[in-house]
Amino acid sequence: MTHQTTPEAVSPGAPPAVPAPGKDGTAATEGVSRRRLLGAAGATGLVLGAAGAAAGYAAAPAGATPLTSLGSDRAVFHVKHQPGITDALQSCGHLVAFDLAAGAGRKEAAALLRRWSDTADRLMAGEPAAHGDTDVARDAGPSSLTVTFGFGRSFFDRTGLQKQRPAALAPLPDFSSDRLDKARSDGDLWVQIGADDALVAFHALRAVQKEAGGAARVRWQMNGFNRSPGATPRPMTARNLMGQVDGTNNPKPGDADFDRRLFVPAGGEPAWMAHGSYAVVRRVRMLLDDWEKLSTARQESVIGRRKSDGAPLSGGTEATPMDLEKTGADGSFVVPVNAHARITRPDQNGGAAMLRRPFSYHDGIGADGSPDAGLLFVCWQADPLRGFVPVQRKLDRGDALSQFVRHEASGLFAVPGGAAKGEYVGQRLLEG
Amino acid sequence: MTHQTTPEAVSPGAPPAVPAPGKDGTAATEGVSRRRLLGAAGATGLVLGAAGAAAGYAAAPAGATPLTSLGSDRAVFHVKHQPGITDALQSCGHLVAFDLAAGAGRKEAAALLRRWSDTADRLMAGEPAAHGDTDVARDAGPSSLTVTFGFGRSFFDRTGLQKQRPAALAPLPDFSSDRLDKARSDGDLWVQIGADDALVAFHALRAVQKEAGGAARVRWQMNGFNRSPGATPRPMTARNLMGQVDGTNNPKPGDADFDRRLFVPAGGEPAWMAHGSYAVVRRVRMLLDDWEKLSTARQESVIGRRKSDGAPLSGGTEATPMDLEKTGADGSFVVPVNAHARITRPDQNGGAAMLRRPFSYHDGIGADGSPDAGLLFVCWQADPLRGFVPVQRKLDRGDALSQFVRHEASGLFAVPGGAAKGEYVGQRLLEG
Repeated sequence: MTHQTTPEAVSPGAPPAVPAPGKDGTAATEGVSRRRLLGAAGATGLVLGAAGAAAGYAAAPAGATPLTSLGSDRAVFHVKHQPGITDALQSCGHLVAFDLAAGAGRKEAAALLRRWSDTADRLMAGEPAAHGDTDVARDAGPSSLTVTFGFGRSFFDRTGLQKQRPAALAPLPDFSSDRLDKARSDGDLWVQIGADDALVAFHALRAVQKEAGGAARVRWQMNGFNRSPGATPRPMTARNLMGQVDGTNNPKPGDADFDRRLFVPAGGEPAWMAHGSYAVVRRVRMLLDDWEKLSTARQESVIGRRKSDGAPLSGGTEATPMDLEKTGADGSFVVPVNAHARITRPDQNGGAAMLRRPFSYHDGIGADGSPDAGLLFVCWQADPLRGFVPVQRKLDRGDALSQFVRHEASGLFAVPGGAAKGEYVGQRLLEG
Repeated sequence: MTHQTTPEAVSPGAPPAVPAPGKDGTAATEGVSRRRLLGAAGATGLVLGAAGAAAGYAAAPAGATPLTSLGSDRAVFHVKHQPGITDALQSCGHLVAFDLAAGAGRKEAAALLRRWSDTADRLMAGEPAAHGDTDVARDAGPSSLTVTFGFGRSFFDRTGLQKQRPAALAPLPDFSSDRLDKARSDGDLWVQIGADDALVAFHALRAVQKEAGGAARVRWQMNGFNRSPGATPRPMTARNLMGQVDGTNNPKPGDADFDRRLFVPAGGEPAWMAHGSYAVVRRVRMLLDDWEKLSTARQESVIGRRKSDGAPLSGGTEATPMDLEKTGADGSFVVPVNAHARITRPDQNGGAAMLRRPFSYHDGIGADGSPDAGLLFVCWQADPLRGFVPVQRKLDRGDALSQFVRHEASGLFAVPGGAAKGEYVGQRLLEG
């Protein structure tokens, strides 16, 4: 999955000395790295190739020379939408859910979100954590670190905030192909961490865990990865562990309805979710031993796209719209009726669209002897009942891919808008 | 850990059209990337920024522009020493051990090593696997992929080759701090995979597993990582998950005795191990919850070096030799007698030296609620009885670090020299 740079969010103008909000209040840039300009850039809040990124640590030795801009690429915490939603996929990610500790309620949650927001702000700027930094990210730049916070359905029961609970947090329906592990699903709080360096991501994970203190304990945690910046000769849609180009039909920041599909508008319900989004998280195990036994032609008919370049089986290139009506010599549809890419098309689902922003995962060999690997599917939408749910319902009824994947964990989280300077994520909920 | 470029191995001369052996028969270069030249380069067999690296797949679309040279950096398989020993640490790694299947012996092992060598050669050149490539690495360059093969002690019993078994493969002594999981230790065969892209590494792992076919089954497998190229503003010694600069005293390719310490000489014993090396592999769990409770000053006295920059507590910079005799105002040694960096110094261990080339690992939260994280310690030496063993023995008797780490798995493998063109790794053993 690659998304394009919103022109007004990333401009190659002269870098100001201090990050300043862009004209829509969402973005701040400070020089633009080659990598980002070439199309792997996220749209929101990136400070690219920021000088002096690790200012909170002692200065680098004289003569230090940047090898690439990877380390100094920086996303900004205090922006309209939280970071980690429209930013470019990072190569390393952690998803972690917390439950509030016994006795912790609204007050402790507010203090926790304030600590977490401060930590995210500091670490995303390349500075050490405020309390007992571990030095694991020392010497490295921010490496495009993003930290994103969300609230699960149970959070509102634990904090007495049921009246503030969004209707959109209604439990996801059961799907027949689900084999969900409850211990690795849901959670009061959810944190998504992404960075282009594994030690920077680990450092942030430990800092977030440490700041949880006695207020919350880890419920589950998952590690993921994506292609490294620069590993392909051009910015392109990513591949998943099945070898498929994955994310072709993602909405693009340039699309007219991009914001409407992704973000709760100002004046939306509930008010504290203005500029926020909903994240559906699914641990989708890929049954690779079965999948890899199929011929390429068979794999392509399962997906409906060519494996080599992601073009629809009806022809053209990856960007060519799929011709759903095209038939072959035998009269059957060229793109089979149960092909995954046909079923998931927005125009086949009442315009449903979500921004898929996944990480692959690989936790070695499973108890069954086959790879414990697949996709940490994360998708973003203004309303899950118009995004993930209708598409997944349809997939559940007849997707050729379903026999090669297994949904093993699930979560749905309300991710508020970004915090203004001096505020913390969720403040409008917790102090509303 | 960073090692320097051997000048004759990497020269910025005009790139020849086809990789050619260097003058010592070990290296072939084809253009030099900025990253590599700046010091993160491995010494042996790297083809840097190789054009057309993914030649085995369909050509990239017109207008493709490299973002960085990361993807096209390439190591060569057919060299004097196997790749993955002196090459720069990659950001992603897999260690995997196999046992020969019931009924498989010398003949099957020879066929397997031939298949594996062919696969490694192809994949390291950015080409697809010969049989049913999964396409997971498609579009990516080789991304500095290395694949390295070794033989465990039990291999020689399984194949009737006991007479060829090196004395150096004698079982490692028991250390009092060992808490070894036998199921994740040892193994007939060992494969080390490293790459600067996680999907490229995963792709190679699956290809190696697939080529094992019915001849061998996975015994254990571990995933690791290191800092991404470019995440720091300069090439520098890496940090581990304790936040420590780790690898300062590694032998450097420029050292006069570098080859002698690392590699079995031509004419050494056994003959088939000429130009080979021995790998000690230890899964070293770090007890991070305990470690992170210490003050920085306390951590520094455990290690004997400053945390900020790796300089010895006796003063200077990271490169300054440690002054073991220096005392403080109270008359005690500035570098404590049980400091890890004092105990492991080669001059305190009869000149024992090994090349440490580890990966960090992080497998989430352990059953005990603390991070299942630490170091996949891999060290290389011409003779483990003069490298790893004496140092570990000494650590076992009084290392301040030992209460913060736990050795959970162990392996010792004979890694033969590189295969000549048309040959496979281990051929001199298996057809000797």
